[in-house]
Amino acid sequence: MENTTLKTWPESATNLIAVAAGRAPADTVIRGGKWVNVQSREILENHDIAIADGRFAYCGPDASHCIGEGTKVIEAEGRYIIPGLCDAHMHIESGMLTPAEFARAVIPHGTTSMFTDPHEIANVLGLRGVRLMHDEALLQPINIFTQMPSCAPSAPGLETTGYEITPEDVAEAMTWPGIIGLGEMMNFPGVINADPKMLAEIAATQNAGKTVGGHYASPDLGPAFHAYVAGGPADEHEGVCEADAIARVRQGMRSMMRLGSAWYDVETQITAVTEKGLDPRNFILCTDDSHSGTLVNDGHMNRVVRHAIDCGCEPLIALQMATINTATHFGLERELGSIAPGRRADLILTSDLKTLPIETVIARGVIVAEAGEIKVDCPHLDWPDDARGTVHLGKHLQAADFEIKAPEGANAVKAKVIGVVENQAPTKALTAELDVQDGLVLSDEANDVCQIALVERHRATGEVVNGFVSGFGYKGRMAMASSVAHDSHHMIVVGTSREDMALAANRLGEVGGGITVWQDGRELALVQLPIAGLMSDAPAVEVAAAAQKMVEAMAACGCTVNNAYMQHSLLALVVIPELRISDLGLVDVTKFELTDLFEDNK
Amino acid sequence: MENTTLKTWPESATNLIAVAAGRAPADTVIRGGKWVNVQSREILENHDIAIADGRFAYCGPDASHCIGEGTKVIEAEGRYIIPGLCDAHMHIESGMLTPAEFARAVIPHGTTSMFTDPHEIANVLGLRGVRLMHDEALLQPINIFTQMPSCAPSAPGLETTGYEITPEDVAEAMTWPGIIGLGEMMNFPGVINADPKMLAEIAATQNAGKTVGGHYASPDLGPAFHAYVAGGPADEHEGVCEADAIARVRQGMRSMMRLGSAWYDVETQITAVTEKGLDPRNFILCTDDSHSGTLVNDGHMNRVVRHAIDCGCEPLIALQMATINTATHFGLERELGSIAPGRRADLILTSDLKTLPIETVIARGVIVAEAGEIKVDCPHLDWPDDARGTVHLGKHLQAADFEIKAPEGANAVKAKVIGVVENQAPTKALTAELDVQDGLVLSDEANDVCQIALVERHRATGEVVNGFVSGFGYKGRMAMASSVAHDSHHMIVVGTSREDMALAANRLGEVGGGITVWQDGRELALVQLPIAGLMSDAPAVEVAAAAQKMVEAMAACGCTVNNAYMQHSLLALVVIPELRISDLGLVDVTKFELTDLFEDNK
Repeated sequence: MENTTLKTWPESATNLIAVAAGRAPADTVIRGGKWVNVQSREILENHDIAIADGRFAYCGPDASHCIGEGTKVIEAEGRYIIPGLCDAHMHIESGMLTPAEFARAVIPHGTTSMFTDPHEIANVLGLRGVRLMHDEALLQPINIFTQMPSCAPSAPGLETTGYEITPEDVAEAMTWPGIIGLGEMMNFPGVINADPKMLAEIAATQNAGKTVGGHYASPDLGPAFHAYVAGGPADEHEGVCEADAIARVRQGMRSMMRLGSAWYDVETQITAVTEKGLDPRNFILCTDDSHSGTLVNDGHMNRVVRHAIDCGCEPLIALQMATINTATHFGLERELGSIAPGRRADLILTSDLKTLPIETVIARGVIVAEAGEIKVDCPHLDWPDDARGTVHLGKHLQAADFEIKAPEGANAVKAKVIGVVENQAPTKALTAELDVQDGLVLSDEANDVCQIALVERHRATGEVVNGFVSGFGYKGRMAMASSVAHDSHHMIVVGTSREDMALAANRLGEVGGGITVWQDGRELALVQLPIAGLMSDAPAVEVAAAAQKMVEAMAACGCTVNNAYMQHSLLALVVIPELRISDLGLVDVTKFELTDLFEDNK
Repeated sequence: MENTTLKTWPESATNLIAVAAGRAPADTVIRGGKWVNVQSREILENHDIAIADGRFAYCGPDASHCIGEGTKVIEAEGRYIIPGLCDAHMHIESGMLTPAEFARAVIPHGTTSMFTDPHEIANVLGLRGVRLMHDEALLQPINIFTQMPSCAPSAPGLETTGYEITPEDVAEAMTWPGIIGLGEMMNFPGVINADPKMLAEIAATQNAGKTVGGHYASPDLGPAFHAYVAGGPADEHEGVCEADAIARVRQGMRSMMRLGSAWYDVETQITAVTEKGLDPRNFILCTDDSHSGTLVNDGHMNRVVRHAIDCGCEPLIALQMATINTATHFGLERELGSIAPGRRADLILTSDLKTLPIETVIARGVIVAEAGEIKVDCPHLDWPDDARGTVHLGKHLQAADFEIKAPEGANAVKAKVIGVVENQAPTKALTAELDVQDGLVLSDEANDVCQIALVERHRATGEVVNGFVSGFGYKGRMAMASSVAHDSHHMIVVGTSREDMALAANRLGEVGGGITVWQDGRELALVQLPIAGLMSDAPAVEVAAAAQKMVEAMAACGCTVNNAYMQHSLLALVVIPELRISDLGLVDVTKFELTDLFEDNK
């Protein structure tokens, strides 16, 4: 399955030795660079690097003896030679791109290794979906490792996923060549309560000698936190303040600090190193979630490293946090993450360590990008039909499917309303007094209360769960539907008009998934995500452009919220407080239980 | 085979979680200590540690909720709680003790993990000997991991070992539960020349995901060194100066710095960290070789850590070099080397971080030593007869076996003489004019030239190779014989009297190996080493006392050399320059070839 012809270190050892000894010519020699040595934390001026078989063969003061006929010589001209950057935890689906297109987008930014958790597709297609992502990942010219998703469903009993991941699935995945560990163990209440299923997944991973990813989204650093750590997760990326980062590292975890498209957790945590002076080895940088627009306009791990430096981190330490620290965490320090003999020849040439312009990117010894331009192919998997046709509505939806009936005889109701909070993942559990007309509860534009619906799409049940949401600021007659609907990825439809809601939902059924915005019965924008209803196999620039149109369409409907699409897509994420919607009903995520829509019925 | 009832982390996770959460009582709680956190490099005052199932369950500010009926509470009274110490590379046989007795000797010094290379027994008993050491290691109450010896013989073609280690042996050993990697790859010329056998051993280790130990005993840091690194060794402990240490770390190796009984390589290398400011994470402390006397009188890894601190290293960094750095190197950072949930509960209570008194030692949750006294059993393997009877002389040796015939008709000869250099491993290739009487070459007491013989003992060939040695200062009629005779461990006999040489050699044949010193036909001292002719299963104090008598006996025979026994036992080590003796003849170790005894015959 793997497209690369990269030999293992033992397979190339004879040749690497011969090159280092001067008995055989290197494939490539980079001459006269500043070797950024992340092992010793030094910059070594005027050093040479020799590459053979896609691996480093010689790193030292003078590689003249490694140059022979056929050796490609690159003059570094005093530029820095840094290891290719590693993203320690991320979801490819967040870019709405396939692994191939994600790779194509990030390679020019200097990312050469990614540790990806295909959690979203696991919710739609289960182990089969994970395998497809894994297989396309292995086709790429950079290193894309797969973390086996751990929590589908992420909230058992509160939602119905397309497939459920079992401990047996985890054990099977651990035997695949590209699996590096277990994806974030989000069910932290499960771990704290020693849920046998969660512990069996962790055990399968530990027994395979692999790394258990953590996710502890709580400010509680007391016994609950300690119990979670005792369960086995080896890293954590939900920390939001210095105390979180310090607590994780003290417990023997690695603290992964995020700068995603909407995560800003580096600045608030990196002071553990820059001010408190903790040993930096257990701090790691990652993105978690990057939208295609961020990849196109801002960068990827280069953006995170720059940001860490802007936050006062020494450049060499920031680079360690995106290279050797990550490699060590995943047991790969002898395979990648540094410029040293035997390792995969993944490097960047840059003329400045602070602004970090990504001038040349080499992966496995091959120039993969130059001056921001991709120079290699990123092969696509031939995605099968069942991965492309995943929006199963079961029927043609009607406006009537979105009607919310009032309790018998009521003229007005007190309804629970999901309150969107700008720039925050948690929602507020609000209530609103709403009018009733012809037995149906009405939205309230004046108070910014409109409808939300969760449309089942995995089993074609035709079921629609209806509720209310506030905070987007929608005006007039509109609807927005998305088959990206964390975590179980049914379909979330938000709207002020039931007719538009039906139109939007049916449109996604027709195109196989994506995001669509409708106004007055007309489609304003469409992002097509035909693969699992989550990803496009078009290039990032195209997806980013479509996404930008979608944002503009939301604004045209009156939406004023920052990152409104993300807020929309998280409204079914029944693991983050306070109030969410799922295919089973309205969920009180402070109590992890289903709840009635109307207060009166309590 | 493993004596311990220690469960794996996943096996105890349910209980560890319950303890951390306060739902189940800990087995032991240590209260009110200074938690030395080697992950964050901090000292955390007034913290508690809870232990269950032999693993850390909770490490935090207050473990009151972990204390229940039956919980043993230890009051730290403000003392430091440090992780148990790790010896990253060492040979148990150097203590002339079995693994059990070595463990018993070092546990009171706070050593709770050892990475041992049974290279010596491999030369005598091959893979079977390694397995016996491995099996006794797994019976111990501390963690003794085995590195599969890589180089038996260490100098193919220049010596005959009892057994030869093959790549197939290495591959088989990698499947054993206690094998952690490959023992020091001493055949560095072999690696540099891409010797297929050496590379196959390295490949078998890397393919098993384990660590390849290095040994590069050369000051050459040019292409030869780089070629060695490209071959795969991941650590190196033969460095003797700062430049050596720095070069190794820059190349992605870990620099292991030794303080053995006769190695003093910490002081000269640690300046790479203390003065040059390199990232300390890739520096590790080890002993390599400790004599039983050192263990009894001076200590073990506690001695090394103290010494590193005396050399100016910050105590927390020195402790990292003997705990988490080592664990990380061997892929065990989630199993030991720090005080953090899930790890083996190996710790030391000490009231001072600089002088490092080892007050209480806990291993796998059990108090194993207190105030220098061992508190647990260290079970012995039932060593089989073939491991006990390994000195096969083939005949009763006579004085005549040690006669050195002069070339036909010569009245005097110019002979090559192995020159012992005090406090150095390399010998000098000397020459001496020696008289001839009755056709036999005579020793020359006035010029400190006496005889040396290599007596074959593995295949009962009865063969004796004779030569000359200078530097011990022996007077009168004496002989000293040792079945510890690195690396192939035949028998080295040094003497001024052929009669005493025969008596000494026969004596070792009679007792099954060891060291014996004779004077005027009388035995002055005997260290019995019945297991493989290398080790005693008596306690370290007894072996140290016998060894002390042996040293005194050598002095009584006129020997003035520091560490004279070690010099004696290394005279057949045909990998260290300049002149050595083996069962095949005199060896010129500057050229790696056999050489004639007499200069004239050239």
